[in-house]
Order: sequence, then C-alpha cells, then structure tokens
Amino acid sequence: MSDLRPPEHQVAGHRAAPNKLGPLVDGAGLFYKPLQALDRGEQELAFYTAFSVHPAVPPPIRDKFFPRFHGTRLLPTAATPGESHPHIILDDLLGGLPSPSVTDIKIGACTWPPRAPEPYVAKCLAKDRGSTSVLLGFRVSGIRVSDAGGAVWLPDRSELKGTDIPGVRRMLGRYVSSVGGDGMDCALAAAVYGGEGGVLAQLRELKAWFEVQTLFHFYSASVLLIYDANAVTTAGGGGGVRVKLVDFAHVVESEGVIDHNFLGGLCSLIKFIADIVAETSDMVPSGDS
Amino acid sequence: MSDLRPPEHQVAGHRAAPNKLGPLVDGAGLFYKPLQALDRGEQELAFYTAFSVHPAVPPPIRDKFFPRFHGTRLLPTAATPGESHPHIILDDLLGGLPSPSVTDIKIGACTWPPRAPEPYVAKCLAKDRGSTSVLLGFRVSGIRVSDAGGAVWLPDRSELKGTDIPGVRRMLGRYVSSVGGDGMDCALAAAVYGGEGGVLAQLRELKAWFEVQTLFHFYSASVLLIYDANAVTTAGGGGGVRVKLVDFAHVVESEGVIDHNFLGGLCSLIKFIADIVAETSDMVPSGDS
Repeated sequence: MSDLRPPEHQVAGHRAAPNKLGPLVDGAGLFYKPLQALDRGEQELAFYTAFSVHPAVPPPIRDKFFPRFHGTRLLPTAATPGESHPHIILDDLLGGLPSPSVTDIKIGACTWPPRAPEPYVAKCLAKDRGSTSVLLGFRVSGIRVSDAGGAVWLPDRSELKGTDIPGVRRMLGRYVSSVGGDGMDCALAAAVYGGEGGVLAQLRELKAWFEVQTLFHFYSASVLLIYDANAVTTAGGGGGVRVKLVDFAHVVESEGVIDHNFLGGLCSLIKFIADIVAETSDMVPSGDS
Repeated sequence: MSDLRPPEHQVAGHRAAPNKLGPLVDGAGLFYKPLQALDRGEQELAFYTAFSVHPAVPPPIRDKFFPRFHGTRLLPTAATPGESHPHIILDDLLGGLPSPSVTDIKIGACTWPPRAPEPYVAKCLAKDRGSTSVLLGFRVSGIRVSDAGGAVWLPDRSELKGTDIPGVRRMLGRYVSSVGGDGMDCALAAAVYGGEGGVLAQLRELKAWFEVQTLFHFYSASVLLIYDANAVTTAGGGGGVRVKLVDFAHVVESEGVIDHNFLGGLCSLIKFIADIVAETSDMVPSGDS
C-alpha cells in the first residue's frame, strides 16, 4: 500500500515525477492511473464503469483484452502535501514480467470522435496526417525492447515522431529482434507474432469482436503488445504474449454501428505484422539445422 | 454505334444533357463515361489501364466486381458541333436488366487521398463530416427502386443529402421494399441481401480481398448494388444480384499497406445490411402461411 512507485517499463503517456502526476504501480499487480484533466479522466472512468459490467460484452473478450477495473482511489499528490487526486485502479498489465518488451500502437486513421469540438478535431487531424495514422490506420506511440538478460533498447523520441511506413516496419521488426547486434534479426518474430497464442492470433480474435460489436467506438485508444523474452523463449510460440487495449478517454457510444475506424486500423496492423512474419520466415534458416 | 443515348437508370454523378457531357450507353452492353475535368478523367483512365492487366489482381475479383474496360473513344460533343471528347468505354453494369434497382454507396470514412492538395482535402472533409461517412464509414449517394412492373421510387434530393444513420437505414430498407404501399415492407430483403449469391455474400467475398490487397487505395469509390425485381423473384435468393465497384478518379497506389479506410467502411456496410436482414426475418411471417 505504501509501496506505490512509478512503473519501470512505461512506453507512452504521462510519467509520474516529483512535481508531476503520473501512473503508479504497487508491485502487487495493481496500476493507479491519475484521472486526466479536461474531463478526459471522467470520461475514461465512465467508460471503465460502464464497460466492466456491460451485459453485452463477452466475458472472454473483457478478461483477455482489457485491464480489469478495480474502482478508484484518492492518492496524495507528492507535489502539494495535503492535496489528493483521484486515480483509476486497474490491473498492472506488465505485472509478473521480469523484463517486459512493450509496444504502444494507437489504432485508427482518425483519433477524434466525430462530435468533438472543433479545435480538438483540428489538433488531432494534424497529428493523424503528420504521423502514419491516415496512411496506415495506426501509429506507433512507444516501444521498449528488453532481452532475457535485461538489456534494453528504446528508440529516440525523433525516431518515433512523424515516422513513415518504412519507419514503422523497422520499429515492429526491432520489437521482436535481439537487443544486441544490429538490432534487426527478427529472432523472435515467429515466437511473438506467430503461433497459437501469439500476437496475430490474438489480434484476429479481437478483430472478430470488432466486426460485430456496436457498443463503443474507441477513438484514440491503443493496443499494447507485451511479451517477456524469458517466457517466450522458454514456452515457444505465443507463450507469455499479451495483447491489451488501453486509453479510453475518447471512447464514445456507437449509435448502433460498428467501429469501422478502429476495425480498419486493426486489419491494417494484422496484415502489416503478418507481412513481417512472412518476410522473416523467408530468410535463410539459422545454423542449427 | 449511332444509338448512343443517356442511360435511363443512373442514380448518381453527372448526367448527359443537350448542353452537358454525361455518360452514354449503346444499348448493346457498353457504357461510355466522358473523361472528367481537372485530371480526374486521366487518373481514372490510368487506373483502368493499370488495373485491367495487373498480374496481382485475381481474375475472379476483377471479373466479378469491376466493370470490364474496353479502352477509350472520342465522341462528338452535342453542345459544340465539330468538337469531340474522350470517353472511357466500360461494360454497362445495368445491361440486360429491364427494370434495375440501383443503390450507389460511397465507401470510406475518408474520401480524400492522404497526399491530395489542401483545398480538396478541406472540401472532402466537410462533406465526409456533413454526411454519414465519418460516422458510418459510408454514405448513400443515390438510390432508385423499380418493381417487377416497372413502377419506380426515387428519394428526394433532400432525403439523400446530409442524411443521418436512421435515414440510411430507411434508404437501405426502402431499396428492398415494394414500390407501392408504405414502401418499407422489406419484402425482398432476404432475396436481395441474403442467400448464396446475395449482396452480403458478395460483399464478404470483396472484403476477403480487401483484407490482403496492397495494390490500390480506393478513395471516394462507390459500391453499386444492383438487382432486377423480375430476376430476383423468379430466381430466389441472390439471383440477378450484382455488386460492382465504380468511380476511380481518386484511386492511389497503396505504398504496400491495405486500404484500411475502404475495408473499414465495407465491414460497416456488411454489418449494417446484416442487421436489416436479421430485423426483417424477426418480423411476423406473411399471411400465406
């Protein structure tokens, strides 16, 4: 309870610092996300509250792809003694992983809800056009690669910002490559992306739900891809791979139609990753054969 | 050859008139589309030229979902004797149907190619936001319903423009309803939308191609849904139903990724129509039972 601290492995979003609010973890499996400003926190809380008990959400989808919601808690703010701030309590998605590798991918060509106020639309549209969102249907917002020994690779901030399609291909190749060496061997592509419980299989399961769900539209939400190099290399294909949706401050009700924007981006991501796996398996096999 | 005349059953786009260029048909199965201004005609011609011989396009997809391309021809313009204008020659998609019913549905939340010039982007974006494109991933651009006896229903122009989601549901219900009566019996929903060769089965076949094709992005293209009430009622489910893509003035090469914008809209249309079929089959059966 008193062991709250900033997460070690965060790849995108606001970070906690002595004079700044940011997420905290308790080391026992819970993640505390401070309510964001400008009603966004209230909106995200409203989403979690509605979603976690919604009778039309299939429990396997909720349990597999969404962080579990545990209510809220006021926590003292380090910056101003005596003041406190509400936090949303969620499962720590990286809990139990000694050296997690994480990619944060913001899904959808369009990150603004259709009925958002004009200045917000203009700001988002500029970002969507200035990144790969409009072209690709998604953009990489953060990435952190950790090998079984704990060595870490992080891209420069400039490598992430305004990257183009070949840049995204490099990032998602790098995400499944050894940390040492030239960094693009895609050594774990088959184990992380392919196989029964791998990223592709999980994304396809998520896609099947998005083809029919008419409950919510997930503007500006992200898919987190998570694996631990220790678990993956021990367990083989798909072992220890997690695919999770996060960031629901701009989710809106759907007016009875599917979330074509999220679904289109998800299909694009699936094809994009499938191409990386196919290219990798075309490579010359390794020396042990 | 001298029998060229404006098509009787056009539902969207420019119409030929004594002082205006518009498409013509020859009554023998060919459709002549005048090259549009502002390089759009050249771009559409370039698309047809490339697409019709592209080795990576599966012939069943090309033959089933696209009008066959027969080259170009200069035709005299009625307005200015002695002048002529180039036309793209295509299959007449309504050829052989005595009383075709047609819906023109522009697919995609976004109708502007990402690298289009700024004023064009602004104009399209305003239309996409002012119609159902952004919300639904598609909009109905035209509709014409003809019953087996040749009686016709056309919406008012105001009924089409800026319509909302319930308005689109009414249009696509009306499209499979009897022309007489109150116009919303959805009598042909199962025969036109459902069944083996019906609209849904064909759209799903098209979707499977869009999940993998990385050749073209079809900005601002339309899906035409076509049936003839005579053929449908005689042949039963799916008989005489045609699903065709048209309007390729804003198609661009894909940079190696799928057309997530078209695919998302297509998935939305499929779910939307499937919901209409499901609601119709829930209705009380007709009196002949």
